[in-house]
Amino acid sequence: MAPDQLTGYRLAQAIAEGAVAQRDARAQFTGAIAARESAVGAFVHLDIDAAYQAAPTPGPLAGLPVGIKDIIETAGMPTQCGSAIYAGRVTMGDAPIVSMIRRAGGVILGKTTTTEFAHATPTATRNPHDLGHTPGGSSAGSAAAVAASFVPFAVGTQTGGSVIRPAAFCGVAGFKPSFDLLPTAGVKALSWSLDTVGLFAPTARDVAFFAQAITGRELAVALPDGWHPRIGVVDMQAVRDASPAMCGALAQASEAAARRGAVVVPVALGEAFEVAQAAQVTVQEYEGARCLAWEYETHPDLLSPQLYAAMTAAQDIPTPLYLAALDAGRRARVELARVFETVDVLLLPSAPGAAPDGLGSTGSAILNRLWSLIGVPSVNVPGRFDAKGLPLGLQIIAPFGADALALRAAAYLEEC
Amino acid sequence: MAPDQLTGYRLAQAIAEGAVAQRDARAQFTGAIAARESAVGAFVHLDIDAAYQAAPTPGPLAGLPVGIKDIIETAGMPTQCGSAIYAGRVTMGDAPIVSMIRRAGGVILGKTTTTEFAHATPTATRNPHDLGHTPGGSSAGSAAAVAASFVPFAVGTQTGGSVIRPAAFCGVAGFKPSFDLLPTAGVKALSWSLDTVGLFAPTARDVAFFAQAITGRELAVALPDGWHPRIGVVDMQAVRDASPAMCGALAQASEAAARRGAVVVPVALGEAFEVAQAAQVTVQEYEGARCLAWEYETHPDLLSPQLYAAMTAAQDIPTPLYLAALDAGRRARVELARVFETVDVLLLPSAPGAAPDGLGSTGSAILNRLWSLIGVPSVNVPGRFDAKGLPLGLQIIAPFGADALALRAAAYLEEC
Repeated sequence: MAPDQLTGYRLAQAIAEGAVAQRDARAQFTGAIAARESAVGAFVHLDIDAAYQAAPTPGPLAGLPVGIKDIIETAGMPTQCGSAIYAGRVTMGDAPIVSMIRRAGGVILGKTTTTEFAHATPTATRNPHDLGHTPGGSSAGSAAAVAASFVPFAVGTQTGGSVIRPAAFCGVAGFKPSFDLLPTAGVKALSWSLDTVGLFAPTARDVAFFAQAITGRELAVALPDGWHPRIGVVDMQAVRDASPAMCGALAQASEAAARRGAVVVPVALGEAFEVAQAAQVTVQEYEGARCLAWEYETHPDLLSPQLYAAMTAAQDIPTPLYLAALDAGRRARVELARVFETVDVLLLPSAPGAAPDGLGSTGSAILNRLWSLIGVPSVNVPGRFDAKGLPLGLQIIAPFGADALALRAAAYLEEC
Repeated sequence: MAPDQLTGYRLAQAIAEGAVAQRDARAQFTGAIAARESAVGAFVHLDIDAAYQAAPTPGPLAGLPVGIKDIIETAGMPTQCGSAIYAGRVTMGDAPIVSMIRRAGGVILGKTTTTEFAHATPTATRNPHDLGHTPGGSSAGSAAAVAASFVPFAVGTQTGGSVIRPAAFCGVAGFKPSFDLLPTAGVKALSWSLDTVGLFAPTARDVAFFAQAITGRELAVALPDGWHPRIGVVDMQAVRDASPAMCGALAQASEAAARRGAVVVPVALGEAFEVAQAAQVTVQEYEGARCLAWEYETHPDLLSPQLYAAMTAAQDIPTPLYLAALDAGRRARVELARVFETVDVLLLPSAPGAAPDGLGSTGSAILNRLWSLIGVPSVNVPGRFDAKGLPLGLQIIAPFGADALALRAAAYLEEC
């Protein structure tokens, strides 16, 4: 069987069954990198020979390569956080998430690009679907590396929308789990209330397999015959403001799910959610000012003007406003639990539209902030495109702790 | 006014009001260090002149010195985690908690001893109340440094009982806040579900002042006339197993609070809490095996035999057992919310007795594990002693997020 017919979990299983050799799988990804990495620029550190020097641990990831966002500490590789301040910095040891991947049989291939400290300043990475477009951010390199078939699996982080948005723009599955399901230790922090480690893979089934391999939890997708979710299609201002193409994709997906047998109903999210969506920015920037205090005070000249300006503004956020923002998140959490009394999952766009033109901005996190603040699982479902062939991502939201349900519903929708 | 009559928040206020000079306060602490640090051994890194080289930021901490547990990254100082693996390691930048202290006007004086990676292997630090006794662990140096008047404030972390227990053994106030109130970024992780940054100061009022100075939250103690808490005195097996002296201190404190006007009632904590107490160990060790995977795999020879054995055992904890342990914590959290419908706070011993004799063990965390897993605030209340003069600590527990209440009730009890 030719390995390039397979990727993600099917490739891992084929290797486990002996149908594909590890070296052929390796050649498949190395070939893709040789062909396109110079154009895409997904990696900030890549040494393929060094990565494969030690034999991988036996495990479900079957020696397949994994890309790690460059704010995550990785033994033997630099962790530079997209910042000149950290140029050439090599830390000791692995972040727990990296150790967990190695133990599952993954090979850490290299470090993928990140916006500066996972904030908004763009990377030089390009969208593999159209090099003139942004891949999104902040986990730009991880999303692009999976989209370009450089790796079958990659790791990123989300504070506002940094997993789901780049996954959507790059047309791959992205999984932001429930808060604290994956450890953030050894990850350069931007906001301790929001930072969440997330995963990328080609499809929802692939990202669920990857999550199960890392955690040992039962997250891999099983879709029993006759299982149909009750889907609430989110109605709120940011959804209504999405592009016509995105609104069309949402309507098309809703209809397809209903045809397949899902209960599909509109769900209006009211005032408490609009307030929480806005509050997320306050939490992120208030905590960001504290997480990046040393960098701001000792190396202001090495920060981008954009980040320096954002951090300067953040110094003045009053603590009572921050506490009110945390409270807004708690209220939305309670309200959301009520919403989930009548539907299993929510469906809405992952971003206002396809990837914006150019590399000057990573796009808007407006459709992600709420779920980052509430801490519930979110999965970007790839497979839909606009007229120009750019991916349009939809996201599934599930209750806190119902990560397996989120992944299953995402696979259901992906296959509609 | 002689500065040595004052410490904690009263000293900070006296400096702010101009009644005490910063240099006199500095001389007070430096003198105590010169007199006793060689016997106590609270610091693993101390360079007093370097610490005071830059002028402190103006702020409520008024240039007072602060000790930082050596698993917390601190700019310009080594962060060695009590491990030969990390000998001489200097990381970039400050953990957010350190930045927050500097911004509040604190001077980072040095790094305080920690058990190896904040697990159980003891430090060489001695209890300032009796050098033949352990100060407890894992935040041994921070508790001892405050008890010996080397610093008025110090920072530690708790995963099992690593703030409340050493505070109790050393006779100082310890504050383990609600989970995630203080950032754990830049802290070497042992368990991402449990690790909590905590604070030490001479009294409950002092530690509340310190917490407010760092966070800007309204945590400083105000005790209005006529305010009396409803106190539930915890009845569970681990409390019944406490030493006679400790049981006596608990009874005496309960009676004193009732005399002052508090409602004091017994509260039996049943099966769900006993299960959760045991489950905390499973969570800690399962996650510990992942947090210390790199150290275990690449430097087994540089781990203590005790930690190596614990980590070896932890490799085999099945994931379903870990998930059941997390579930036990969630069930206890729900049950505890019900308990707090009839009382404001809970009262129980901070440890089974006074500090054990010798330095071979840091003592038992049996009375702390439950609260670490549930994530609720806990304050060690100092001021009681056994017949030999060793401190006996009692702890106040409050609902999640009710940190100000925990501190207020602790001050109330301290003043009974």
